[in-house]
Amino acid sequence: MTTPTSRTRLSPQARRAQLLELGARLFATRSVEEISIDVLAEEAGVSRGLLYHYFGSKQDFRLAVIRHAVEHLVEQTAPPAEGEPLERLLTSLGVYVDYVLDNLTLYRSLVRAAAGGTDELRALHDEGRFALTDRIFREDAQGEILTDTPQARLVVRGWSAMAEEMVLTWADDPSVMTRDELLSVLALSLPALVDLT
Amino acid sequence: MTTPTSRTRLSPQARRAQLLELGARLFATRSVEEISIDVLAEEAGVSRGLLYHYFGSKQDFRLAVIRHAVEHLVEQTAPPAEGEPLERLLTSLGVYVDYVLDNLTLYRSLVRAAAGGTDELRALHDEGRFALTDRIFREDAQGEILTDTPQARLVVRGWSAMAEEMVLTWADDPSVMTRDELLSVLALSLPALVDLT
Repeated sequence: MTTPTSRTRLSPQARRAQLLELGARLFATRSVEEISIDVLAEEAGVSRGLLYHYFGSKQDFRLAVIRHAVEHLVEQTAPPAEGEPLERLLTSLGVYVDYVLDNLTLYRSLVRAAAGGTDELRALHDEGRFALTDRIFREDAQGEILTDTPQARLVVRGWSAMAEEMVLTWADDPSVMTRDELLSVLALSLPALVDLT
Repeated sequence: MTTPTSRTRLSPQARRAQLLELGARLFATRSVEEISIDVLAEEAGVSRGLLYHYFGSKQDFRLAVIRHAVEHLVEQTAPPAEGEPLERLLTSLGVYVDYVLDNLTLYRSLVRAAAGGTDELRALHDEGRFALTDRIFREDAQGEILTDTPQARLVVRGWSAMAEEMVLTWADDPSVMTRDELLSVLALSLPALVDLT
């Protein structure tokens, strides 16, 4: 597939971002092992040399693609600045659920690659989870949902793994509960779990 | 390392089990990619031919080792037959936490291998989780902790991922809460979560 990207003049930064987007799309249909600079060069219609210039190596390319996807997810799911903490959490979770539904194969592939991959990939997964959950503490500074203690941090980490698992399982069979019911369980479970510590 | 296993006469079944135990020990110190029939042959002091006879291929060997470890965990964590549902859940979770602490590298390696591995490995991880959680429904037939609905099944699956994540995180820094506090959060969170559906 040759896309117009091979002919358009873009700044190096914009071109790099575009190649990362293309890389993310590759993730949606191929296993991590199959994603290479060669495949991207073919799909994007650009030279391998240019890709090596931007990304250095196959490993660095994969890492850059996943980092880009993680940053995109964290950005997309930023909760609204105003509102009740629980309302803001619900809104943020809603965007997360929709993101997973819209990018199901990609997201599943990223989670798998991160969980089973190299130390660097796992660190990236952890960073992503940390960015998503740390935000909850920062935006709930008044402690309306939870107070920031080591115990609460441990519980929120577990809650985050639960949310990931529940959303991915639910996406396979959304007849189990409505999207609103799922969001409600996820949002309300956070204070309920922290209350147990 | 040559062990006495190479000289002892054992039934084929006992020998196979012994080789699987050795395989599990390899998992504790090596990455999944490094575990091969060659390495096992060297460590166990038996011939490669014998190992191929028992396991067929490298992939089948890995799968057999992980299957064996999963079955062992499910067996070990069987809750006591008598007692209050929540007490039995606490006991079972206690054995699980101790198992993870005693086999931390192995367990982490298995979870990673399963999450990032082939479809067969992931299926095995799912089977293990299913065996651990399905038990809760079977042994709580009176519905004292939860009733068996598709919604509760989804929540229990999420809870199971949360427990795995919390125990593995806690094992890295047990100063965050005591073992009893961890067990209490895990056990009490199950009915609390199901109540939200």
